[in-house]
Amino acid sequence: MATVPLVSDAAASPEVAAVFADIRETRGTEHINNFWRALAAADPALLAATWARLKAVMVEQREGGLDPLTKELVYLAVSMANGCDYCIHSHTAAARAKGASAAQLADLYAVLAMAVQTNALVTALGVPVDPGFQAEAD
Amino acid sequence: MATVPLVSDAAASPEVAAVFADIRETRGTEHINNFWRALAAADPALLAATWARLKAVMVEQREGGLDPLTKELVYLAVSMANGCDYCIHSHTAAARAKGASAAQLADLYAVLAMAVQTNALVTALGVPVDPGFQAEAD
Amino acid sequence: MATVPLVSDAAASPEVAAVFADIRETRGTEHINNFWRALAAADPALLAATWARLKAVMVEQREGGLDPLTKELVYLAVSMANGCDYCIHSHTAAARAKGASAAQLADLYAVLAMAVQTNALVTALGVPVDPGFQAEAD
Amino acid sequence: MATVPLVSDAAASPEVAAVFADIRETRGTEHINNFWRALAAADPALLAATWARLKAVMVEQREGGLDPLTKELVYLAVSMANGCDYCIHSHTAAARAKGASAAQLADLYAVLAMAVQTNALVTALGVPVDPGFQAEAD
Amino acid sequence: MATVPLVSDAAASPEVAAVFADIRETRGTEHINNFWRALAAADPALLAATWARLKAVMVEQREGGLDPLTKELVYLAVSMANGCDYCIHSHTAAARAKGASAAQLADLYAVLAMAVQTNALVTALGVPVDPGFQAEAD
Amino acid sequence: MATVPLVSDAAASPEVAAVFADIRETRGTEHINNFWRALAAADPALLAATWARLKAVMVEQREGGLDPLTKELVYLAVSMANGCDYCIHSHTAAARAKGASAAQLADLYAVLAMAVQTNALVTALGVPVDPGFQAEAD
Repeated sequence: MATVPLVSDAAASPEVAAVFADIRETRGTEHINNFWRALAAADPALLAATWARLKAVMVEQREGGLDPLTKELVYLAVSMANGCDYCIHSHTAAARAKGASAAQLADLYAVLAMAVQTNALVTALGVPVDPGFQAEAD
Repeated sequence: MATVPLVSDAAASPEVAAVFADIRETRGTEHINNFWRALAAADPALLAATWARLKAVMVEQREGGLDPLTKELVYLAVSMANGCDYCIHSHTAAARAKGASAAQLADLYAVLAMAVQTNALVTALGVPVDPGFQAEAD
Repeated sequence: MATVPLVSDAAASPEVAAVFADIRETRGTEHINNFWRALAAADPALLAATWARLKAVMVEQREGGLDPLTKELVYLAVSMANGCDYCIHSHTAAARAKGASAAQLADLYAVLAMAVQTNALVTALGVPVDPGFQAEAD
Repeated sequence: MATVPLVSDAAASPEVAAVFADIRETRGTEHINNFWRALAAADPALLAATWARLKAVMVEQREGGLDPLTKELVYLAVSMANGCDYCIHSHTAAARAKGASAAQLADLYAVLAMAVQTNALVTALGVPVDPGFQAEAD
Repeated sequence: MATVPLVSDAAASPEVAAVFADIRETRGTEHINNFWRALAAADPALLAATWARLKAVMVEQREGGLDPLTKELVYLAVSMANGCDYCIHSHTAAARAKGASAAQLADLYAVLAMAVQTNALVTALGVPVDPGFQAEAD
Repeated sequence: MATVPLVSDAAASPEVAAVFADIRETRGTEHINNFWRALAAADPALLAATWARLKAVMVEQREGGLDPLTKELVYLAVSMANGCDYCIHSHTAAARAKGASAAQLADLYAVLAMAVQTNALVTALGVPVDPGFQAEAD
């Protein structure tokens, strides 16, 4: 249940239609996710800026950077930690579409469970940072 | 500033000493992170259970699962999303030790920034899940 | 799907009925939000205390303080950051009822997206506070 | 304690130096916040993209949009809800620099306290959204 | 709407079936929560490890430790703070099954509301820890 | 490092001094936590309202409600889940002052670790609520 209407193709302004067209061309699919349709209603300028940045980060490939599947798994892990249901569904689907196997997703769940547990314990105990961790940053 | 003392080697009970010894052998280093020393003070049984599980998830390798660096990056991303400073420092150091390059960490930061932004917008707009995302789960 | 029943007018105890009556009079509407009906079931004393405080903060006007719409936008932004779906729906409706325009809400979404992104990067990088920021607090 | 070095003016690449110069010109101050210096070390491309977007959202003014102080208060409220200490310090300082009075900040604290409390109770009770809230979105 | 299928008894592998059998015997009920059925699909090894640990923490009793109802209330409070709807529903039901009265749950809601409010204000104000709090940890 | 000064006894207005006096009398100690001193600077009205409510919830005893130590443990668990360092320190100290044993705190840490782990997995898997959980609420 959205707080804004979802913008249909018919109702799209030229600015929105241009973004929708680029999403379709970049992804090679006719489907425009509800997220983009809601964002189009909320703020067309924010839609354009968000899509441009997402394309640069998730579609384009940086030399020596992470491969597309790893980036998708990181995106999914962050969405899980933030408890964003829609995002978990869309990025689980995206990870599978990019080739994530059941064993890889099983590892993702196992690492998530491990990380939140140690995150919480570290915070609960107020553990001071080991001096050695810092040295590597300088 | 911890809410419990950090258990030194000299003060370790046999149960705690056995865990410390296994950490040292598994990791090939004499250094025991402050996290384990604080957890030893809080609850030796929780120390043993947490280390055993962390070893199974992060050290052992599942057939067809994620490689050690990818698991480390997911762990780090979750720690960042949860805002755990100690964890961010320790797992940034661990990612570098496992070979994460500056370009790979740059991608991690870029994906994190992208994910939290779209997570927040999806939530703010109450976007309903696209029916197609669900089909792939069944 | 609530974990408690929603208290109807007919089922309201005198203590609850008095709060419902004050909500109706203060807001000039017969509608009592589900939140108040659920809170009435959970703890009538908490209902009374929460309504009294909400009225003092959101309805009454402090000299030199924030105007009602700005307070509503801050309330909404916090609800978005906390990922509370019900709260996002009720306070988006309230912001519109208090005169928030589409352009103002568009700015709210844009600032939210910006803030969560820089919040996450600051945390991920462990950025130390600039000395100058502190000076102004003293 | 940062996980990356803070890039000094002397160490800035031409790409980073150009961003630093634009920050200085836009803000009319010589001071470059530690956030930008850390981001420059983490990923110069992310620095450029983040600054460009922050300038568009926070410095430029949308017709009929929120005034600069209200945007700053929303930014601050989100940072508080996310528990980002650095961000709270920098945006409290920024809010004061943009004219926020003590009474206005007092209202911000009061609304924050109110919002997190009702957010938590709504979530704890699983309150279903009132049908009327949705009507306004369509 | 799950991102994985829920594993039925008929579809359970021997590894999964053994966990399901132990859940049934330990809890004295035929019902297996959807959580365990989803986890069985995601990662049978994670299912086994999570159930084993949950049984050790929540079912077994440590000498001098917390009683079962108090542990359940802590579990519920954490789930509320984390905004996990499913967990709130399952652990509210579990708390009632373990004897939590309406007055005890009312106190839980009241303490939750108090805690999140002071947590947020402390964070918003950047309050430094009183030296005395630390002394007790050493 | 606070964003507001800490109000000393000498600098306290009559309104603030009255709250400080009631804190001292209620708690039987001369020490006023930094939280109250910071809140006094931020908003004396919020200080008075927060203290009045905290006294009602945490000091006064509801018939059939939770005992003081259990309320303190719930407060602490919520503070841990919210990652509020100051609150963790102050409420760990308070729990010890109210008689929490090392074994009880060990159980608290163990339950926290369990809860955040299952919270995260439930969210990651999008587990639907079992119909039976709801029945008990009606």
